[in-house]
Amino acid sequence: MTIPEQRLRAFTYRIFKSIGCSDADASLAADVLVSADLRGIDSHGVARLSGYVRLWENNRLNATPNVRIVHETPTTATIDGDGGLGLVVAPYAMDVAIEKARQYGSGWVAIRNSNHFGIAGYHALKAVDQEMIGYALTNASPLVAPTFSSERLLGTNPICYAFPAGQYPPVVVDMATSAAANGKLEIADRTGKPILEGWALDTQGNPTTDAAAVKKGGALLPLGSDCEHGSHKGFGLSATVDILSGVLSGANYGPWVPPFVAYLQPVADQPGQGIGHFVGAMRVDGFRPVSEFKANMDQWIARFKEARRINEQQPVVIPGEPEYESVQQRKTHGIPLVDAVWQDLMGLASKFGIESPAAGH
Amino acid sequence: MTIPEQRLRAFTYRIFKSIGCSDADASLAADVLVSADLRGIDSHGVARLSGYVRLWENNRLNATPNVRIVHETPTTATIDGDGGLGLVVAPYAMDVAIEKARQYGSGWVAIRNSNHFGIAGYHALKAVDQEMIGYALTNASPLVAPTFSSERLLGTNPICYAFPAGQYPPVVVDMATSAAANGKLEIADRTGKPILEGWALDTQGNPTTDAAAVKKGGALLPLGSDCEHGSHKGFGLSATVDILSGVLSGANYGPWVPPFVAYLQPVADQPGQGIGHFVGAMRVDGFRPVSEFKANMDQWIARFKEARRINEQQPVVIPGEPEYESVQQRKTHGIPLVDAVWQDLMGLASKFGIESPAAGH
Repeated sequence: MTIPEQRLRAFTYRIFKSIGCSDADASLAADVLVSADLRGIDSHGVARLSGYVRLWENNRLNATPNVRIVHETPTTATIDGDGGLGLVVAPYAMDVAIEKARQYGSGWVAIRNSNHFGIAGYHALKAVDQEMIGYALTNASPLVAPTFSSERLLGTNPICYAFPAGQYPPVVVDMATSAAANGKLEIADRTGKPILEGWALDTQGNPTTDAAAVKKGGALLPLGSDCEHGSHKGFGLSATVDILSGVLSGANYGPWVPPFVAYLQPVADQPGQGIGHFVGAMRVDGFRPVSEFKANMDQWIARFKEARRINEQQPVVIPGEPEYESVQQRKTHGIPLVDAVWQDLMGLASKFGIESPAAGH
Repeated sequence: MTIPEQRLRAFTYRIFKSIGCSDADASLAADVLVSADLRGIDSHGVARLSGYVRLWENNRLNATPNVRIVHETPTTATIDGDGGLGLVVAPYAMDVAIEKARQYGSGWVAIRNSNHFGIAGYHALKAVDQEMIGYALTNASPLVAPTFSSERLLGTNPICYAFPAGQYPPVVVDMATSAAANGKLEIADRTGKPILEGWALDTQGNPTTDAAAVKKGGALLPLGSDCEHGSHKGFGLSATVDILSGVLSGANYGPWVPPFVAYLQPVADQPGQGIGHFVGAMRVDGFRPVSEFKANMDQWIARFKEARRINEQQPVVIPGEPEYESVQQRKTHGIPLVDAVWQDLMGLASKFGIESPAAGH
């Protein structure tokens, strides 16, 4: 099933309205989710819509949060998301960071008491629209074991940096700090295929090719896979995300980060509130004229695009370029949805008495 | 040979004085190098002293630079290092970042026209001393190939984040963005051992276990090693370091970053000046009270230290802890130097007519 962007956006907006979000919040949350689908990051788009609804049904999501600054200096702030959608809380925080950057050159905001914020790239790109460098991190519920351990203590904790360019699309580095996404294991599991060694450990901490390893209580590995290939670096990056998002904001961290899925309960004795994010913006012209920076970015990109190839058919991929191309393609040709996601959306339509996004299509 | 810290420091100071550095600069440069040795990062300590001297002998290092701010906002600045020692330029830049953070909550400084700055951790830890979070990056001459390429276009481009803690030592994530350090290949090559697959490519872009692969024109691999294990993420991180350090500051970037070793000439038509760094500082109390942050950091550290072990003998290693322990040990028992480094220092002593650091020892 392929749905035009506008229809999917309107449908998603109505679902968020149905759980009680304001017009502005429903519209913003729909924009963040559909933006993930447009960018080809299907795992973080409307595929998650029913997950947010289930969190709300379990009273773990506040549809009308009072998002507010609880602490600030000219260029830093901490925001309490009041248990709202990260899809709404994070853009609010990014607006604060951008406004601080406009005034003082840079702005940095730690966010607590929030929920899953969608793709980090959406938030970082808001800064790029203002000729700024964008930065967005979030912690997430534990799936990844630190080096030398088999215990899930970290989320896939993504890091995103976004940089404006000139004639090229922005460079967007948007990456989980695990070796592989859990979605890759789920797909392999559904299709009965083994996974690569270096992605996960079994419950005993042994390397495994069992696609169900994490489902059975094992753990994902940090970027680097094993210590000999630098997994302590992946662990260090994931720790950095957890500290900036969780510890600095007063959110939960490590094993205490509450799960996105509603069928898992948050653990007891949480040290903080909700999950945490961290966003930032720096004016390019706080360092040098925008035109000079963009000219050098274009040279950087052009040089890496023409790097010597190992396989003639496979050029070097500039971070953010495939996602940019996906947006152009899907804005024109619509957003393809796999059957499971489509059934999920139909279920939501039926639950809230809303017309299917395919109606009249 | 094991040398007391004070003697090694005094000797290193005299060498920097001999090439014309001011008292203050020679003392600072010695502190940065000896700090690497104290922290157990021997590859970045006095082992490099003769390298800096050779750069100076080749007129590629300005011993009396006019380090100055060339562009600034309340919380951002660009510094021109005037071709000086990165060991001197980067601490100056960090002082600027810290002063901006003191006034406005955060401070960020891009540096161009510099040279190798030693260990990133030294610079980031200056912020930790002020109850701030420290950040330090540098680009470096190309040794690493981007994913899908066999061409050296990136340095080992390290990233460092440093966080204050309470009863525990600071958490210091200080990591190259390559899968393995070039030093590991050099050691294997000297001892005639193969290297692990996933560290390097040969000149044709094939995986290799030849320890001499990079020496022969091959390339190091980014963190993640291959695309299936996330090397595009290691590439993205390295690109981020290159853009913040090189493109944003007006330094060189990618294949144009000048080599540290004096026997290699910088390539022609450089787009920028020297190598680039990027440093930053954020006040912890710009986000929440320092005591609360430190209490949560201590809980974070304690929880990760007690993570379930795969091997009972090997606990999870908190980033920065081994280096902290090395400092305690080496401050008491002295700094061990391998013979090659010792001979190197003897050569410098003889060249400049300075007493050996072992004299009277």
